[in-house]
Amino acid sequence: MAKPTLARGMRDFLPKQVYERQYIFNIIRTTFEKYGFQPIETPVIENLSILSEKYGEEGDKLLFKVLNSGEYLSDVNENDLSAKNHSAITSKITEKGLRYDLTVPLARYVVMHRNDIVIPFKRYHIDKVWRADRPQKGRYREFYQCDADCIGSPSLLYDAECILLFDDVLNQLNVPDFIIKVNNRKILAGIAEAWDFTDQFKDFVIAIDKWDKIGEDGVIRELGNKGFSEAKIHAIQQLFRVSGSNSEKLETLKTLLLNSPTGNKGIEELEKVLDYLSGTPLNKGIIELDFSLARGLDYYTSTIFEVVLKNYAMGSIASGGRYDELTAGFGMSDMPGVGISFGAERIYDVLADLNLLPEMAASSVKVLIINFGGEEEKSAFSLLQKLHAENISSELYPSDSKIGKQFQYAEKKGIPYVITAGADEIREHVYPLKNIISGEQEKLNLESLIAKLKS
Amino acid sequence: MAKPTLARGMRDFLPKQVYERQYIFNIIRTTFEKYGFQPIETPVIENLSILSEKYGEEGDKLLFKVLNSGEYLSDVNENDLSAKNHSAITSKITEKGLRYDLTVPLARYVVMHRNDIVIPFKRYHIDKVWRADRPQKGRYREFYQCDADCIGSPSLLYDAECILLFDDVLNQLNVPDFIIKVNNRKILAGIAEAWDFTDQFKDFVIAIDKWDKIGEDGVIRELGNKGFSEAKIHAIQQLFRVSGSNSEKLETLKTLLLNSPTGNKGIEELEKVLDYLSGTPLNKGIIELDFSLARGLDYYTSTIFEVVLKNYAMGSIASGGRYDELTAGFGMSDMPGVGISFGAERIYDVLADLNLLPEMAASSVKVLIINFGGEEEKSAFSLLQKLHAENISSELYPSDSKIGKQFQYAEKKGIPYVITAGADEIREHVYPLKNIISGEQEKLNLESLIAKLKS
Repeated sequence: MAKPTLARGMRDFLPKQVYERQYIFNIIRTTFEKYGFQPIETPVIENLSILSEKYGEEGDKLLFKVLNSGEYLSDVNENDLSAKNHSAITSKITEKGLRYDLTVPLARYVVMHRNDIVIPFKRYHIDKVWRADRPQKGRYREFYQCDADCIGSPSLLYDAECILLFDDVLNQLNVPDFIIKVNNRKILAGIAEAWDFTDQFKDFVIAIDKWDKIGEDGVIRELGNKGFSEAKIHAIQQLFRVSGSNSEKLETLKTLLLNSPTGNKGIEELEKVLDYLSGTPLNKGIIELDFSLARGLDYYTSTIFEVVLKNYAMGSIASGGRYDELTAGFGMSDMPGVGISFGAERIYDVLADLNLLPEMAASSVKVLIINFGGEEEKSAFSLLQKLHAENISSELYPSDSKIGKQFQYAEKKGIPYVITAGADEIREHVYPLKNIISGEQEKLNLESLIAKLKS
Repeated sequence: MAKPTLARGMRDFLPKQVYERQYIFNIIRTTFEKYGFQPIETPVIENLSILSEKYGEEGDKLLFKVLNSGEYLSDVNENDLSAKNHSAITSKITEKGLRYDLTVPLARYVVMHRNDIVIPFKRYHIDKVWRADRPQKGRYREFYQCDADCIGSPSLLYDAECILLFDDVLNQLNVPDFIIKVNNRKILAGIAEAWDFTDQFKDFVIAIDKWDKIGEDGVIRELGNKGFSEAKIHAIQQLFRVSGSNSEKLETLKTLLLNSPTGNKGIEELEKVLDYLSGTPLNKGIIELDFSLARGLDYYTSTIFEVVLKNYAMGSIASGGRYDELTAGFGMSDMPGVGISFGAERIYDVLADLNLLPEMAASSVKVLIINFGGEEEKSAFSLLQKLHAENISSELYPSDSKIGKQFQYAEKKGIPYVITAGADEIREHVYPLKNIISGEQEKLNLESLIAKLKS
């Protein structure tokens, strides 16, 4: 018989890993709640009419598509079949797919439930998404996204709040030094406006989005290949080289974008966001204006964010931005919003690597009752139910195996206490309790036993 | 533009529904933890080699299959294509599917991680599964299962614990009167053994499994159609008609199954399970031996359970049983186990219908700070961060809209308090706090404000 295997790019998690991951999700969740975000749930399976053409050509290829049920080929054209015309056939034999992110489903949700939600709609969603990407280190085909979005308000107060959320969550998680990079898409649009290459804006964004991978030289080369003149490239380089404190950067930028109304709007928005934050020192994060930040996804229209670790080589661990028209694709306009996403999988990898996850018990069980069989077993079973009634997480070993084996079970499962009550003790209503870490042992009556285990 | 829609049989959930559902999941989860079960996670996507032929022919049809990526037709035979030979083509163009339950993935998990888990392995798993069933009231294509299983021990102590788990969880959930039906597959095997129809055991089980739908007469008719003699049908009827208390039922059963070693083993096991429970009164559930209980799924080999509501017409709200060979299909034998599953979707439907869900706030937000714009807005934003630093769930309205609109936002979102601090109050460091339910209003300094909102 073939050994069972996981599907490619998929993962199982052991209890200890689940507890460690829950620790991360719980901090993110409770912080989202603290800022007034509410949870929603959307299905894993969405119609492909919702998902297709939302993530670019590359994204469409990465959608997991669900085969239609029944005689799925009945409508397929014979010629397409014999020619193995994949694209024509795929559209006939699949109508559903697995969600690729939580943002497009959110847009659908807002449009469909517009009468049942409170606007501005602050929602969070922590759940799995799927991408048929080539698996590699740190990249999985099934992974969690942890998103908070606020939809239906143009207020930049929410953009400022996003920065505080990054700082609050990552500080609680004990993530090492991190930088919150901030930019505004209108500044990028402004440089294009000021230097008259608005028609090549997309090429420009695609090029600078590769900054992390190919460096400034690479970006410049790519821009040259796309036909950008030396003067334009020089202007773009100036934008990248703006330095100093955040307010110094903004002052320099103002001179660079003097002639761009769009650019000036972007500067004004950034100033407003920073002004909101001026009275509130961050816990740990450093805000850094970075005018080369682009965020590839093209639905962002204003503020954009990206959080990176200062001294650890890894892509962004959180990101987000403001968008004007998320729901326009589903026929609803005037729904500006801003949202952020924590890369929980990457955060887990960093914390695990740097040994920054808190020590977790392998289980929540507080005590194991040793099983001596016979009548003692029955008394032990009753005792177990008394502990359960007091909400003490507890177990009775299922058989009268050798004591050593029973103790081993407790050790392996990280259970700190064992109760070894033989016939005599049961008759006398005393319970010998042993701490298997310290070796400390004491005999307690039921009341003290319960008090001790509850503490 | 076409209106966006949900895929067939799929559901969205509003924040209030998510909170209500979390209330149910949390009680199930914390109770599982109390009994020593540990959480695991398995992927949504499994290889079809794992899922196929595990749920019978009908189940195979209900698997959601994921289309292979890329040129998925390249290996498909031309003749199969032109003949639209679905079964041959499907096996070539799909290799992955969505999990149909949490049990088969558990079996795979135990086999693959045998060296990393503690045996007996008490695991729970609360997550979604998918079935391409025809959607109807109370039946969804995507739904939660809440499973706890204990693998690697033949001890009937765990079977007794399953009964306590049903009782504990359903009692905490305030589910109305319920009956925990218990049987043992060996008793059904025993009646077949005693009356010499072991070769027709499957027909027998399939027939009595329909009891709820077609009643005793229907079952008898079906057995007749399957060629059961009158004498055998009479014996089966006697089994169904056994009455009295549970111990009286067992006594009657002993005479009926006098000549069946398997049947006697079943009786012995049931007695043992009941004996464990004899010292522990249930909170609310009533244990009822029901020898007509069959549980269709054929991996059960011993104790079987089914929980039904006493006075509410609905299928079972929880179920489970003991199995000897769950992992045998993946090449690992000697792994007996017992497991239960709560039908959280049905439990939600009952509690909602009977108005038994606790009153939930529409959000966890405690206070809304009214936004007066300008400098007041900046002070309000600082105040908001002070509240966040104290872990008080709070919001600042994002713009200086009319006060009425801002109050409406608080009301709609179920936020009990608002702070209305104008310029004067801010200068004097006092914060007017209003309870928008009672109308009560008071002016507090920061310290008292925080204390009040934390209480």
